[in-house]
Formats: sequence, structure tokens, C-alpha cells
Amino acid sequence: MTSFAVLSESTGSRARAGVFQTAHGPIETPAFMPVGTNAAVRGLTPADIQSTGAQCVLGNTYHLWLQPGAELIEQAGGLHAFMGWNGPLLTDSGGFQVLSLRRFCVVDERGATFRSHLDGNERLLTPETAMEVQARLGSDIAMALDVCPPYSCAASELFEASERTLRWAERSLEATHAPGQAVFGIAQGGVDLGLRTEAAAALGKMAFDGYGIGGLSVGEKREQTWPALGASIDNLPTDRPRYLMGVGDPSDLIEGIARGVDLFDCVLPTRLGRTGTVLTAQGQLDLRHARFDQIQQPIDSACDCAACTRFSLGYLHHLFRSGEELGMRLASLHNVRFLVRLVADARRAILTGDFESFVAYATGRSAQKALVGQA
Amino acid sequence: MTSFAVLSESTGSRARAGVFQTAHGPIETPAFMPVGTNAAVRGLTPADIQSTGAQCVLGNTYHLWLQPGAELIEQAGGLHAFMGWNGPLLTDSGGFQVLSLRRFCVVDERGATFRSHLDGNERLLTPETAMEVQARLGSDIAMALDVCPPYSCAASELFEASERTLRWAERSLEATHAPGQAVFGIAQGGVDLGLRTEAAAALGKMAFDGYGIGGLSVGEKREQTWPALGASIDNLPTDRPRYLMGVGDPSDLIEGIARGVDLFDCVLPTRLGRTGTVLTAQGQLDLRHARFDQIQQPIDSACDCAACTRFSLGYLHHLFRSGEELGMRLASLHNVRFLVRLVADARRAILTGDFESFVAYATGRSAQKALVGQA
Repeated sequence: MTSFAVLSESTGSRARAGVFQTAHGPIETPAFMPVGTNAAVRGLTPADIQSTGAQCVLGNTYHLWLQPGAELIEQAGGLHAFMGWNGPLLTDSGGFQVLSLRRFCVVDERGATFRSHLDGNERLLTPETAMEVQARLGSDIAMALDVCPPYSCAASELFEASERTLRWAERSLEATHAPGQAVFGIAQGGVDLGLRTEAAAALGKMAFDGYGIGGLSVGEKREQTWPALGASIDNLPTDRPRYLMGVGDPSDLIEGIARGVDLFDCVLPTRLGRTGTVLTAQGQLDLRHARFDQIQQPIDSACDCAACTRFSLGYLHHLFRSGEELGMRLASLHNVRFLVRLVADARRAILTGDFESFVAYATGRSAQKALVGQA
Repeated sequence: MTSFAVLSESTGSRARAGVFQTAHGPIETPAFMPVGTNAAVRGLTPADIQSTGAQCVLGNTYHLWLQPGAELIEQAGGLHAFMGWNGPLLTDSGGFQVLSLRRFCVVDERGATFRSHLDGNERLLTPETAMEVQARLGSDIAMALDVCPPYSCAASELFEASERTLRWAERSLEATHAPGQAVFGIAQGGVDLGLRTEAAAALGKMAFDGYGIGGLSVGEKREQTWPALGASIDNLPTDRPRYLMGVGDPSDLIEGIARGVDLFDCVLPTRLGRTGTVLTAQGQLDLRHARFDQIQQPIDSACDCAACTRFSLGYLHHLFRSGEELGMRLASLHNVRFLVRLVADARRAILTGDFESFVAYATGRSAQKALVGQA
């Protein structure tokens, strides 16, 4: 059903360009995936998302399971039909959301017992439930339930989380999944390189269609992130896509691609957009700042998004100052387009053998220094 | 610059179909105009508005004058360029907003002195200022400053408001306006038929390009509204457009058209849409109601809007239940499309001589009973 082909590899780094075939079409990798938590990418229609060039959208299993419920979405024809998105969809396992409500969550070997943030009712999320819910949602890529421990946890907790994630990965593979649905395992291990190595090697022996790399960008320093990512990637199969979960900062995307990451997701572009912050090649701009009020140029005159081709910074500033919802929508649209294009540009550079120059251009650093991911 | 041509008149009522030419293109009348208070129709882009079939958008002079200011919009190339809308634009005079803040507003012969709701500073809005601000905004249709008294005011206050509105109308005509900009006077008179007659007759002698009918749908009963509207229309020139201000309820639109109204504006479709209420031929639906959660049909399967052609009631219900902004946007879009189409359908019926049948069909009442506006 799914297949992954690496089309080109960068010579000066581990960056690679490929195509991942899903039941709802191909994803050209590396790719950035915007997040549609509640079956909607904040404020944007599927047509808007398509206009950003995004190929795959992420849905949050935790949110959708609780509301409107997996049965209801299944009856509506699955998540694609429900939200009107006909391209590839990836669903997470719900584990990250459940565990981030730690006060109300108890993890044991069965799964994670938690209280719904909506009605307070107790629920048990097991590896099998996570797969069943995702099967009902009918996503193209389902994620195995993992245990993502907090950055600052004790070594014993980190070890146990990583080991349990492996046991749950095996249970996830044996559980129900929808026909044609790819299943990805998740490699944990925090910033412990030994654990990362062990977890990735063990996971890599299981027959997943791809591999998530979790537990990074959760508070650790970037000097810790990249070696940990490297230890995961070094020990995962090269013929399957690698998905760095929850990472969306522009410089992190480039660093991740240089280290061989194929897929990224992050709420960053829409979360920033809703508060009036937009991404540019020169960094973030806060549209609420008074200095923009008379500027008749767009956010980025080279950007082809619906915000930059039609509206000035002065107008966008005015929308945020007046509390007009349209501002959030346009800023979110621009930010998604910015990240999708950044990653698409990286892909093109990999295919043409110019990835090192691209990195130097995009980061303003020399290729050698930028490509710290190089072996 | 502007011209108005009546193309067809209904035989069984006073309904008429026409075309009003503006500097930014024609408005086929009768027409419903959505309101873009802060230079944006809540949550919608100009492309969205265009997709609803709306031909003319309304901007609020009060809001735009205070923020971002008329000078800034003028420097940006006018309101059309600022908000990215290339079709006809109508601006109100700001009077209605100033007077609805009555606690902070004192009206004398010069104009209305009020405190800004943004910074508390005192400002004076005169007939000349209102015209100057609208000239800077560069709207296609500018409205003369009027005094719109509350429904329950004393007869003396109503009389004085109506008389002052006439004196201000003369001052407005003498004031600056932008090249090619049409200027409309406003007929007041509350529900006093004598005052309505007098005000409309006096205003009709002034060389306005069209006439607003104000002070209706402000709390009075509909049995009072329609005779008052009739008294205004009976005494206004037949060769100029008549604009019933602030009216947008579907049945009111039909009643207004039957009485010879050419233009309407109202915040109703976007205000309702933001709270999850949508307009249908069978009345309003509250999308937040649990009964919609499993319904896979759209709001109206005969509607061609972006919400009805792509999304189910169940999905829209889910968006509102989850607090997703996309729900407000889709509901607002549907509501604007609903009213624009209703009025466009009425126009088509007038042109084909079927207005009476249209009214009977649209209201479920016999043509004779529906057309209470018939002489």
C-alpha cells in the first residue's frame, strides 16, 4: 500500500529527497506537515492548505477520540471525508497529549489512564485502542502509542519509557489497522545516546512502514538534540521515512533535513500566526508592532501566499490591532506556506546537488559550519 | 460618474430592478451589501466576498477614522487598495456609531462631540469632517452625516433630529468629496409618517446621487416600519437608488424590495455566523445544537457556497463545539451568500415579471398577503 523511494542523497550531508506513497497520494520528502488538531488546521480550509503546498495534514487522535469521537468520524466516511481533505493524513497516537496532562495521567503496562479534559471521565488509552481509533479515523499514516517522558525526568524513568515504548510498538504492530494504512513506530531515548541507539536498533527490526523520532525539542538544548537525533537515525533502516515529531522552527528544519529527516510536523506556524507573529527569512516579525502601520509592502514580496500577494504589512497590522479574525487567518496561511516552501526548497536543492549552498544561503552560515550533522 | 437606471418594475408591487454605476463598477439592484467595519468583512478575504456574489462592501467611517485613520488609508491608496477590494465600496458617515455611544456624545448644530472608544480623546464629527474622511477613504458611495435618534425618543427630539439631518445634508453636499464619489443623503423621521413625508420631500429636492432611509429597524414594530418606509420612498425621487440602512433579516429584505428598496446592508450574516447561527429558507439553525452532530448533509444542499459544497452539518457542529475559528468563517460565508442570493433571486424575478410568485414562494404566503407594500 505504502512505499518509500529515496531519489537523491546529498553528498555533503545526510540529507535525502524521496517520495512516500500513501493511499491518498504521494508525499514528496522532506516535507513539512501542518497540524489540524480538531480536524481543521486553525482557521484554514482544505483549499487554503492546498494553496500552501502542504501535502500531508496531521490530525490529533487524542482530541478527535474525545470529540466528536472515532465512531462518528468513521460513520462520516473517515477523517478525510469529515474534514474535506483528500490528500495524505497522518494521525498521532494520542500519547503525547495524554502524557502532557500528567497530573491526571497514570501510565502502566496496559496503557495510559487519564481524565478527559472535556468531561472529566476516566479513559484508558492502550496501544491497541490507539491503533483502533486511528483505523476508524482512516488516516494514511498511523503512529504507534509511545511514552514520551519529560526532558527533566530521572534516568530510570527515561529508561523505562524507552523500553515500554518498544513493547508497545510490538503490540501496535499486532493490533488492528485500516487497509492501506501505514504504521510508524516511535523511537524514544531522550538525550541519552546509548538509549537512543538501543531503542532505534530494536525498533528498526520491527516491520514498521516508517519511524517517528520522538522526545526531542521538549526543552533540551540544541547541542543535545542533534546528537540524539543522529543516534536515532544511525540505527533506523535507511529505506523507511524518518519523521522528527513536533519540530517546526525554520533553522531546526534545515538541521533536521541535513541529518536525514524526511517528515516534520509542528503547530508553530498556526500558533504564531494567531498571535500575529509571521516567519520570514530574516526571522520573526510581530505584526502588532506599531512600526508596521504605514508599510505598504507585504510580509515578503517574494512570497506567493495569499497574504503576501494581496495585503500590506500596514493592513495586516491594522487587522491585528482591530482584533479582526482575518489577520490570524492570513498570518497562519503565510507561516504554513513559509515552512512548506523552505522544506520544498531544501528538497529541490538536494535533487540538484546544491544542498550545501542552500544551507549556506538559508542560514547565512558556511556550509561546513551549518552542516554540523555531517559525519 | 455615477448613474442609476431602472430596468424593470414589478406590476404587483413597487419592487424594481436596476443598475447603479459606480467608479468601481456596477451594482445590480436590489443588492445586499455585507459590512466590513474595520476594512474587513469578519474573517473573510475579498476573494471570499466575491465568491458570495456580493457586489458592494460597506466600511464604517467611525471605526476607520479612529483606527488606522483616514490619512493612513489615503496614503495606502484609499480603502480599496488598503483592504484589497476592487469592487464598489460604500462608507457610512460615522453618525450611527457616534450616536449609539450616547453617554459620551453631545450633538449640537456643528456636529457630534464624542469620546473615542479607543483612547478616550474627545473628537468632533461634523458633516464636513464626515465627508472629508470619506473622501480620503475614497469610497464609491459616501453617506451624509445624519442624526439617528433612538426609537423611544420624545417627539420634539425626533423632530429636531429630522430637521437637523436636513440642514446637515445641505452642508454635506457643499463639502469636499472625492472625484467620482457618489453622495447619498439620509431621510429620517422615525415612525412619524408626517415627518417621514416632510424629510423625504425636502431631501429629494437636494442633488444627491441616492438616498439612504435611516432610523428604521431600531426597535419599532414591523407594522410601524413599513408605513414609515413607504412614506420615505413615496417622497423620494424615483430615478435615484433607495438604500434601507441596517436591515438584513431575510423577510425584511423581501418586504423592503416589495416597497421599492434598491440597497440593503447589515452585519447580521457575519454576526450570526460568528455565534454559529446559519440562515436557511426554513429559518435559522444553531450549529452548536447536538442534533447536528451526525448529520452528513450540508446546511443547504441547494446552496453553492464554500461551506455547503464541501462540509457537512456534523463537521460544522464539531468546529463550533471545538472552538475552531474555521466554523465562524464558514458560517459567515454561508450567511452572506444566503442573503446575497435571496436578493439576487428577487431581482431575477422582477426582471422576468415573476416577483409576486417569488414572494409567495420565498415567504410561504400568498402574494397578495405578502405584498403588503402594494399601494
